[in-house]
Amino acid sequence: MKTVFSPLHAGHADTMELNSGEIVPGFEKPARAEIIKARVESERLGPILPPEIHDLAAAKKVHTSAYIDFLPTVWPQWEASGRGGSAIPFTWPTRGLRGDVVPDNIDAQLGFYSFDAGAPFVKGTWHAIKSSYDVALTAAALVKAGERTAFALCRPPGHHAGAAFMGGYCYINNAAVVAQWFRDQGAARVSILDVDYHHGNGTQEIFYQRRDVQVLNLHADPMVEYPFFLGHADERGHGEGEGFNHNYPMPFGTAFDEWSAALEDACGKLVAYAPDIVVVSLGVDTFEKDPISQFKLKSPDYPKVGARIAALNLPTLFVMEGGYAVDEIGVNAVGVLTGFEDR
Amino acid sequence: MKTVFSPLHAGHADTMELNSGEIVPGFEKPARAEIIKARVESERLGPILPPEIHDLAAAKKVHTSAYIDFLPTVWPQWEASGRGGSAIPFTWPTRGLRGDVVPDNIDAQLGFYSFDAGAPFVKGTWHAIKSSYDVALTAAALVKAGERTAFALCRPPGHHAGAAFMGGYCYINNAAVVAQWFRDQGAARVSILDVDYHHGNGTQEIFYQRRDVQVLNLHADPMVEYPFFLGHADERGHGEGEGFNHNYPMPFGTAFDEWSAALEDACGKLVAYAPDIVVVSLGVDTFEKDPISQFKLKSPDYPKVGARIAALNLPTLFVMEGGYAVDEIGVNAVGVLTGFEDR
Ligand SMILES: [Zn+2]
Ligand SMILES: [Zn+2]
Repeated sequence: MKTVFSPLHAGHADTMELNSGEIVPGFEKPARAEIIKARVESERLGPILPPEIHDLAAAKKVHTSAYIDFLPTVWPQWEASGRGGSAIPFTWPTRGLRGDVVPDNIDAQLGFYSFDAGAPFVKGTWHAIKSSYDVALTAAALVKAGERTAFALCRPPGHHAGAAFMGGYCYINNAAVVAQWFRDQGAARVSILDVDYHHGNGTQEIFYQRRDVQVLNLHADPMVEYPFFLGHADERGHGEGEGFNHNYPMPFGTAFDEWSAALEDACGKLVAYAPDIVVVSLGVDTFEKDPISQFKLKSPDYPKVGARIAALNLPTLFVMEGGYAVDEIGVNAVGVLTGFEDR
Repeated sequence: MKTVFSPLHAGHADTMELNSGEIVPGFEKPARAEIIKARVESERLGPILPPEIHDLAAAKKVHTSAYIDFLPTVWPQWEASGRGGSAIPFTWPTRGLRGDVVPDNIDAQLGFYSFDAGAPFVKGTWHAIKSSYDVALTAAALVKAGERTAFALCRPPGHHAGAAFMGGYCYINNAAVVAQWFRDQGAARVSILDVDYHHGNGTQEIFYQRRDVQVLNLHADPMVEYPFFLGHADERGHGEGEGFNHNYPMPFGTAFDEWSAALEDACGKLVAYAPDIVVVSLGVDTFEKDPISQFKLKSPDYPKVGARIAALNLPTLFVMEGGYAVDEIGVNAVGVLTGFEDR
């Protein structure tokens, strides 16, 4: 299996985030990607390729143009306002406020295009976002060209990013971008299987009214876990998308037995949908030692996840999402991939 | 002029807020109310009365019951989750997210019921909110009983709080509560004149579809200033409320000449509306030395504001809102009141 990776992710470093009423160092940090890359090498998963550079047209197929055009301006605007550290908003247009007028102020723009204080910008953030997008599209092209699978070692992740908002460490929704790209390349149907601990609210939002992209989400119950405001079982799609969105919210403490039963159900729905391609939003924050999560999967469980996905017998693109137990993130993420390869 | 004041505001102290990507001490602090009270005394404005205790029925006429019932639970829930400091949310239900399911998690509930990270809770916050509400209602009763005017020395302020959200140092919208209370006591029409530097987005939202409460707002342009997502000139009310909301957004650097021209226009609309009562949302963060604001009013301007309001010749209740230049907040706030009394 080929892996696509860019060193530019590392410029998105030393970020700060709001948590428990304090500004703390971001759990989403460069070591995550570096440790996964090292494990890809030590496990001899296959060659590691650099990304090809793409323009932003594919991003603008799933995000609004205004949102994508905004992202590269954030750090220059923040610096021009005389500030350093991490650019983080402090106010958001919730119920009763206007979503149709973009303010001139950079703090307001940050809030306008986000749903939390968890998508900080530093100097290297935009280049990391862009490289992550390039990584995803380059890996997608490998699968399009005939590879059975490929691994997009994306950082930052993407599944919390919606059509016009960032949040939860996510800016461009890489999985959504490649799903749309496969459609535009001729795939009739694409399934996105999101196994990250957190609900992929951005992915759901982007495809919620469409039947040509099936979205399956296994995650912690939003009643008790971030992103809180989406991911309930009754969200099944809308309009012609009704019936093509499937959520599997699970309680704190869920271990592999129950989790894999949900995966089995999702795989059944996926097979019934008969997609041409599967995009896996690969988060390994389901791990028992993850510092911000509450599931109980163990390292030996991850190859079984990969094996189950391989049994779908479909072209499959893995897109890296979350996972914050950096000591084991390589073992667990690459464990899924070696399990997929049946070794 | 009688002033109503409660020492319980002081328990809302040592709050922290998110600003420029950092957690900083709140600009909204106990000294604000204490310095105004001292000026009321030194200027011999009149007696200072304690508030009568009220139940929360009047609050639930302008806020949702769920929101009001939530407020006293915040600090106990936050403490039960093992944390101290200031309770501040980190994620909000913006576009594409659900506003119909209240999560169980306290961080999520804080985000569900707010639009920013600027309404922190500490141990004494709920008792301060409740006392501020009692102060407003007690002062309103003085005017109802025949006083020409009264001063509700409220802290925390209220005008950013909407029907179901807090934000911008505001929790219960005291001005909205008393406007509704006057209606329920038989006033046919009430005008709310908001002279705070910031747009009173909560007040606007609460009365936006009603014609029995006129809302007039003088404030910094939301394109460049908090609360950013409401307060444009084209917001004139909706449905039967159309034409009963008036916004006067003004640019950074606005001095008294231009500001008072807007006040004059607002007074014209108020007179045409012919209310039984005027509720003034009295913020003095229009002051040239305010640390978070960009208007240029000077201390001698404030008595002129009071005199202009007095010339309306209507029963008038002053409800304290913002103002963060603590050295001069007493001079400026009480300046409006002595100007109203023509001395
Ligand atoms: Zn996650
Ligand atoms: Zn203000």
